[in-house]
Amino acid sequence: MSVVFDLGAWSSARLSQVEQALDTWVTADAPLGLDHGAPAQLVEAMRYAVLDGGKRLRPLLVLAAHEAVSTAGANSAAAAMRAACAVELIHAYSLVHDDMPCMDNDVLRRGKPTVHVQFGEASALLAGDALQALAFELLTPMDGSVAPATQAHLCALLARSAGSAGMAGGQAIDLASVGHQLTERQLREMHQLKTGALLQGSVVMGAQCGEPTAQALAALQAYGGAIGLAFQVVDDILDVTADSTTLGKTAGKDAENDKPTYVSLMGLQASQAYAQELLAHAVAALDASGLTPAQTQALRALADMVVNRAS
Amino acid sequence: MSVVFDLGAWSSARLSQVEQALDTWVTADAPLGLDHGAPAQLVEAMRYAVLDGGKRLRPLLVLAAHEAVSTAGANSAAAAMRAACAVELIHAYSLVHDDMPCMDNDVLRRGKPTVHVQFGEASALLAGDALQALAFELLTPMDGSVAPATQAHLCALLARSAGSAGMAGGQAIDLASVGHQLTERQLREMHQLKTGALLQGSVVMGAQCGEPTAQALAALQAYGGAIGLAFQVVDDILDVTADSTTLGKTAGKDAENDKPTYVSLMGLQASQAYAQELLAHAVAALDASGLTPAQTQALRALADMVVNRAS
Repeated sequence: MSVVFDLGAWSSARLSQVEQALDTWVTADAPLGLDHGAPAQLVEAMRYAVLDGGKRLRPLLVLAAHEAVSTAGANSAAAAMRAACAVELIHAYSLVHDDMPCMDNDVLRRGKPTVHVQFGEASALLAGDALQALAFELLTPMDGSVAPATQAHLCALLARSAGSAGMAGGQAIDLASVGHQLTERQLREMHQLKTGALLQGSVVMGAQCGEPTAQALAALQAYGGAIGLAFQVVDDILDVTADSTTLGKTAGKDAENDKPTYVSLMGLQASQAYAQELLAHAVAALDASGLTPAQTQALRALADMVVNRAS
Repeated sequence: MSVVFDLGAWSSARLSQVEQALDTWVTADAPLGLDHGAPAQLVEAMRYAVLDGGKRLRPLLVLAAHEAVSTAGANSAAAAMRAACAVELIHAYSLVHDDMPCMDNDVLRRGKPTVHVQFGEASALLAGDALQALAFELLTPMDGSVAPATQAHLCALLARSAGSAGMAGGQAIDLASVGHQLTERQLREMHQLKTGALLQGSVVMGAQCGEPTAQALAALQAYGGAIGLAFQVVDDILDVTADSTTLGKTAGKDAENDKPTYVSLMGLQASQAYAQELLAHAVAALDASGLTPAQTQALRALADMVVNRAS
């Protein structure tokens, strides 16, 4: 007799830990061994960008992947929580910069004025820069709580997910593709970098905090790739089908900005079918992971949430 | 009989290695184990920002500090070269973002149009973001060339030097202080973060690639702190005394922008005396390092160059 997994209860327990950790780590204190703390006005903008907002999908993926492969009694929870917060800081910084006038010029995010509207463009620029650095600070605690080899591995994965061959590279392709017709392959490559790299990176970082078998690691990589792409397909769908209040950001921006999307390329129905196909890929990868259904239940539920979400 | 140290010869041998390493590492290839390379247009902006320009003071400090404490036969040169390039990438990204219209709005840098003038603001923003991530990629090679504990330590030092309690924090204070009167202590604190943290971080990162004694490490930290501050004092002096052609950037910007500087606070003569005093502090730290004069000769010559430079 199987018990239905309660994603809401699983998530809310972990989200309250993530929120508390972010609240602790994004501060003006100098808790990391430095003489100087950070200036209060910069930290205020950083906290505004990070706290009390967003679905926290990336941290949840880190924690779910870690739990799937962690050994009972292993002391890896501290590393996983740091990784969970680090990927969220990278995500948050990318939103701050992406919303700026020279990029998407958006004024609304998570139902609030964007950071540059609230604090000015220069402060938004610096807050984003500082959030990226802070992500790597979180991964490299000097208190012995995370093994040096794990620290190095997590930094390696995060830097590659965030950089020119990951998220920043995808944003550059996005920028260059406005007003251009892309093939389905080009659109997929853009999104694999822009959104997929950090989502997949979150899954792999979580796994690497534990002790994954080679089989499990390969499966989790495939899972991360599938849901990373599915996330963007669904994002494109929601930009057409949802309203701004539900999204917490301006709907219809893609068409307005003449951006290539899955919907503009494949149509709405085919995009919806493609999202379901990617969900099936993600689940199949977990089936082939050598992990038990109980170990992967949070990952399965998160994949379902990514594809079938309403906002 | 002591032989005079030839800083020019010492520097040019190392600078050609640094230039070659940067040329190799800032590329559109995917040499780091990823499926995708970076998009060409982003990499072009990154290369424009990094290659063929600047004094490369930070890489030279990394290499000089490493040589001061490295053990004969130790296999730490690869780590030091990666650290040297990583600090230069952080410096380069900070210049790209600092020159943008919402910050200093400067059009000339190292005698060339600034990145946003050449490539547009959005590309400049993304190129800076990607350069920061690339710095951490360089510190975390997956080929076994650098010990994981060294990778972790270097990432920890770089993140803290670059972030909200380091360079980005100093820039935020700088931004908030335009048009305000600062005390000498406030001005010093601003510069210790804005410029000093990364210069001092360069020295400490270089040292940590080798095997410093506790005495040597403390001395090198003090040395780095003194020349980090001296660098900014001299920068303020040169903004008044040098012309744009010599500087390779627009002279007289500080007064024009009503920025607090050492010259505006202390006057020109007192600023020049203070720079010499900081040089004496840096040399005294090296004298107390337990290292031989031969081991510290490059660091001594670099300190002299920082304080007595003409541009």
